[in-house]
Amino acid sequence: MGVIHRFGGDATGMRWDGVSVQRYDDPSARAVTRQVLIGPREGAGAFAVRYFELGPGGRTALDDHCHDHGVVILRGRGRVRLGDHEYDVGAGDVVYVSPHEVHQFFNRAEGEPLGFLCVVPPRS
Amino acid sequence: MGVIHRFGGDATGMRWDGVSVQRYDDPSARAVTRQVLIGPREGAGAFAVRYFELGPGGRTALDDHCHDHGVVILRGRGRVRLGDHEYDVGAGDVVYVSPHEVHQFFNRAEGEPLGFLCVVPPRS
Repeated sequence: MGVIHRFGGDATGMRWDGVSVQRYDDPSARAVTRQVLIGPREGAGAFAVRYFELGPGGRTALDDHCHDHGVVILRGRGRVRLGDHEYDVGAGDVVYVSPHEVHQFFNRAEGEPLGFLCVVPPRS
Repeated sequence: MGVIHRFGGDATGMRWDGVSVQRYDDPSARAVTRQVLIGPREGAGAFAVRYFELGPGGRTALDDHCHDHGVVILRGRGRVRLGDHEYDVGAGDVVYVSPHEVHQFFNRAEGEPLGFLCVVPPRS
């Protein structure tokens, strides 16, 4: 059976019916929330689709692991570290993070959150 | 090595640098284009992220296959058939299509395209 999560977001935040907002607890992350839009709870075993949001000054963990990421920026502007380089990114941009590539997302803006979808293979 | 595809869309269409717009040729589809944002060309072997757009009156193929889909609607309004039921969907909504579930997307609007991201496992 398929599942539909209705979008219920507004200017104050991105929310979906039936999806809870989780704190992203990693010592090197700051001001990050995660919402699992499609994953094991929806019956998905082959991939997961999550929405991450970084508040002002926020950053994801500095990561380097064997699985890859498919990222689509939905709101805001920020930077992404890929290997030894950093790049500006903004709404609409698509980022592929390859396996074992050091990566980290930053929101250095004062106001608007940086929000992005992040696809991962199972057991990531 | 990671890959960034910069968003270059405007009111007339969703486009990304380095991504070509393909016609989606299936006898039961109508007015559909596909852009592969992340796939084998980017080095992704565990999943693919595609952007589909349905023009006015457009529809995807009536499909039923062993792989699942993770869909996030990015623009417009339309309907999705899941099994024996149809549901209205609009920008922001998330749809999980399970394996072997009959499914089809429709854009019945006069003007605006219906555009959505669609995640699939490899070899789909």
